[in-house]
Amino acid sequence: MGKVYLVGAGPGDPELLTVKALRVLKSADVVLHDALVDEGILALVRPHALLVDVGKRAGDKHIAQEGISGMLVDFARSAATVVRLKGGDPLIFGRTAEEIAALRRAEIEFEIVPGITAAVAASAQAQIPLTDRDGPRSVVFLTAQHATGRGPTEIARFAAAGSTLAIYMPNGHYSEIAKQVIAAGLPPQTPCLIVSNATRPNQQLHWIEVAQLQFLSLPASPALLIIGSVARRREDMISAISAVCAANETDFKTVHPEL
Amino acid sequence: MGKVYLVGAGPGDPELLTVKALRVLKSADVVLHDALVDEGILALVRPHALLVDVGKRAGDKHIAQEGISGMLVDFARSAATVVRLKGGDPLIFGRTAEEIAALRRAEIEFEIVPGITAAVAASAQAQIPLTDRDGPRSVVFLTAQHATGRGPTEIARFAAAGSTLAIYMPNGHYSEIAKQVIAAGLPPQTPCLIVSNATRPNQQLHWIEVAQLQFLSLPASPALLIIGSVARRREDMISAISAVCAANETDFKTVHPEL
Repeated sequence: MGKVYLVGAGPGDPELLTVKALRVLKSADVVLHDALVDEGILALVRPHALLVDVGKRAGDKHIAQEGISGMLVDFARSAATVVRLKGGDPLIFGRTAEEIAALRRAEIEFEIVPGITAAVAASAQAQIPLTDRDGPRSVVFLTAQHATGRGPTEIARFAAAGSTLAIYMPNGHYSEIAKQVIAAGLPPQTPCLIVSNATRPNQQLHWIEVAQLQFLSLPASPALLIIGSVARRREDMISAISAVCAANETDFKTVHPEL
Repeated sequence: MGKVYLVGAGPGDPELLTVKALRVLKSADVVLHDALVDEGILALVRPHALLVDVGKRAGDKHIAQEGISGMLVDFARSAATVVRLKGGDPLIFGRTAEEIAALRRAEIEFEIVPGITAAVAASAQAQIPLTDRDGPRSVVFLTAQHATGRGPTEIARFAAAGSTLAIYMPNGHYSEIAKQVIAAGLPPQTPCLIVSNATRPNQQLHWIEVAQLQFLSLPASPALLIIGSVARRREDMISAISAVCAANETDFKTVHPEL
């Protein structure tokens, strides 16, 4: 019998793989990866290893989750070392529960190799803490779907508790998120940061306020939205961000340059 | 002028450093590290590099945060490559805001290298997701101090929102946390998992329920407490955990073996 590794690929920069993830990836016979995993990471596998893009769409069809779980089991049964490679960390918004259940049912040995999740990568790139002894003492990771899909109660609770909100997959939901958090009592001036393509060459940072979030139009890309006072120290940060962006050969925009 | 790297050391296993953290660590002239950073990680620095344990207590005194920030600035001014190495990720409960502010004031170039935070490492070791499409759609990272120190309102909000709670530094607070979450409306049967020394040779997993948390007495050690339905699938998990523990040459206890 083979073995399955459920591996976090991190945010994009191949250097943000863990040492263990890199070792496991280099030992793989088969790698099943999501569409968003960076080419630079896929280039690290052995020359004879097989790559399966399970995020690929054939026409309008995704490979169903059951199909992916089935492949993991079947490949492992053929004695292969199988890596299931997911963006970020497999256990945070990674839909990994189904794959774990399938592997347990089939009695396939597996191991989980954690990865740098998007909120952690975004805050490092922006050089802002997610928690602060003098500010928010907690951070909530949620999806835009979660933030907007079940009525105002849940996000209101988080906002009222003073947590930093780290919202995954916000594309197309900015307006609704803004309405929800304002309805929940957050001041319209609450700082927001959108980090798209974090750690990739096309990374962009957008510093705005909740009030402007309602009218924001950004091209769809892997992004993370941070809402809370951790993004408050704007003056301190603009110069620091300029330096980071220059060092990374990318740039940033201020939506409201007069602020 | 030198440069400062604020680096996440991850949970303990040296293989859970990122590739970038390892590279930066190997290039350091000076490493200022917390008391909890693993010896196996400190062994990775160059032979001539200097190690400063800023978590060390001299008598009853810690080095004050201002002292650490001052050292970072002074070392960088002496043209050194300085690594500030913190357990987990620097931006989650890492008290990094003060150090960032000091480096900006002194106009020292710095970079943040993210790390695997304790909640992510603990869930990987226990093979449980932190979020689940069919269960909690969000996860809150908070400290026990935060969970217990400001009255029942905040943890009640998180519990009511159905989030997975990932509570850092729970030692000595189990009873109070249990009272708070029960008062907040969580059923006493809500599953809990305590992971102590995650990814280290002395790792232990304790699977219990909120009701038993009140009477729990564990030796003080770096630990993380996860509360929520993600730990529910007990039957599925016991066999998987046994295998993981055996593979890692560690063991686990069931506080209530009859469950």
